[in-house]
Amino acid sequence: MAGIISPSMPVFIIKNEVTGHLTYATPNEGLGKVLRYGAYGPEVIRRLKWMETTLYPSLKAALAVSGPLDLRSMISQALHMGDECHNRNKAGTSLFIRAIAPALVEAVSDPATVAAVLRFIDGNDHFFLNLSMPAMKAMLLPAEGIPGCTVVTVMARNGTDWGIRVSATGDRWFTAPAPLVQGLWLPGFTAADANPDIGDSAITETGGIGGFALAGAPAIVKFVGGAPADALNATLEMVEITAGEHTAFTIPSLNFRGTPVAVDVRQVMRTGITPRLNTGIAHREPGIGMVGAGLVSAPKGCFAAAFEALRAI
Amino acid sequence: MAGIISPSMPVFIIKNEVTGHLTYATPNEGLGKVLRYGAYGPEVIRRLKWMETTLYPSLKAALAVSGPLDLRSMISQALHMGDECHNRNKAGTSLFIRAIAPALVEAVSDPATVAAVLRFIDGNDHFFLNLSMPAMKAMLLPAEGIPGCTVVTVMARNGTDWGIRVSATGDRWFTAPAPLVQGLWLPGFTAADANPDIGDSAITETGGIGGFALAGAPAIVKFVGGAPADALNATLEMVEITAGEHTAFTIPSLNFRGTPVAVDVRQVMRTGITPRLNTGIAHREPGIGMVGAGLVSAPKGCFAAAFEALRAI
Repeated sequence: MAGIISPSMPVFIIKNEVTGHLTYATPNEGLGKVLRYGAYGPEVIRRLKWMETTLYPSLKAALAVSGPLDLRSMISQALHMGDECHNRNKAGTSLFIRAIAPALVEAVSDPATVAAVLRFIDGNDHFFLNLSMPAMKAMLLPAEGIPGCTVVTVMARNGTDWGIRVSATGDRWFTAPAPLVQGLWLPGFTAADANPDIGDSAITETGGIGGFALAGAPAIVKFVGGAPADALNATLEMVEITAGEHTAFTIPSLNFRGTPVAVDVRQVMRTGITPRLNTGIAHREPGIGMVGAGLVSAPKGCFAAAFEALRAI
Repeated sequence: MAGIISPSMPVFIIKNEVTGHLTYATPNEGLGKVLRYGAYGPEVIRRLKWMETTLYPSLKAALAVSGPLDLRSMISQALHMGDECHNRNKAGTSLFIRAIAPALVEAVSDPATVAAVLRFIDGNDHFFLNLSMPAMKAMLLPAEGIPGCTVVTVMARNGTDWGIRVSATGDRWFTAPAPLVQGLWLPGFTAADANPDIGDSAITETGGIGGFALAGAPAIVKFVGGAPADALNATLEMVEITAGEHTAFTIPSLNFRGTPVAVDVRQVMRTGITPRLNTGIAHREPGIGMVGAGLVSAPKGCFAAAFEALRAI
């Protein structure tokens, strides 16, 4: 992680140190009633204003003291600590706090501000998600636009459509209707409140973590549903449709085998298996926010469309 | 955790909130050349002096702000984050830093001191061990001295003998020669440097974590040797010799089954299986310190002696 731009809409800046690619993400607000899930209202705005005026400048000053943080190393460690770095980021958030806390103390003179920043991050076990997502994006950007390459470089959902991009076809989208997510509900919500699958967070699975690393995060089933055996099977199933195993991200319980990475459109078509994600669920009405989290499989339609386009090249 | 006594030989004070039992432990110095493994020399003394004059007063002040920390909850969480809380305490140490950091910032006015304390703890992934050990002791003390109870309440090794105590026989020790530990070596050391099994840390296994929770900590094999499948089997084997499953400490990959707890001398004699530990290894010569870490099974002799004593009651 290279720095933070501020003020007004500050973002984390992530740099692929090998290729120089840059990616960006706003820090994570938390669960429930938050802007990224479509919620608004005075408490949402108040939190964002505090993040802009207190959290962001503090982290910027701390990063100036600590220097860039090695997110790939932190993701690799978190995968050995029960995270899959999409819907479970408790270890990643812990490692981030460990890395930033001493620098924060040295960089920010007001103890009350330092304590408030530490408590905000500590109070949100998903804080690291908004670092794991842009880190994966930075790792995937170099895979775009390779002639003849049938590997998926982006998977994303807008609440209506599910879309993928493939390396050889560049920035062209292949879409199909977004499915509903099967999951568990935050207090007060049910399946009737759920919007079809939405969000950019599937960049984690695209890069070989998240649902693809579920075997290393059996405790996540308390948040997304299912049983630990399903978590193991989810990772093993993804081996069938991926081009390789990750060299930096490994699963201890699978004898330190690398996570399945690089979804190959040809393998999806051959097997009929589509990528499995675990993800958050947004309310179907705007203004309310996150209502649950669960598991979903990508629709086959977008892979079929991509396959036809690849054949036509 | 209830507080810290200081100065000169400060210790963590752990309180069993249900029974009122108190236990104590000095904070963990780290790996390698440390006093608890028999090492001495200027750098060992210098570190201990810094711990006495800087670390301890800072943590004491922070605990006065935060109030007691719930160690049982932290152990329970760490077991879902790849720790077994004996030889792997990376998650527990992370959770401790998260819990104490904001209070430390508020309690200690000098930023350089706060940053140094945070860096010391962050630099030692075993820091939480000296909280998990006394926490287990505080949970086990109420099990001592119950008439007719054949459950093991203490397992400990002094480098020559391996000893156990059993509930019904109170503070009587049953011993057998200490075995050598099979493990991995710190740089520069080999099996020829190893002392037979030594230390009080087997209190973790006695209480149902450590080697008994190995199934939840597959990444530990990089530190103690063996393969992840061995870790799973170690926990399952301990089910055969324990009286129950823990209600607070669970293993996600075993479908959240409780860790095996309360070694029953009768079951050890019936099955021939003895408790499996994972533990550190001390150098056979005094003054050098820790040389490795590995796995060891308790000798049968102490259980046979306890069994005879129980029959004679």
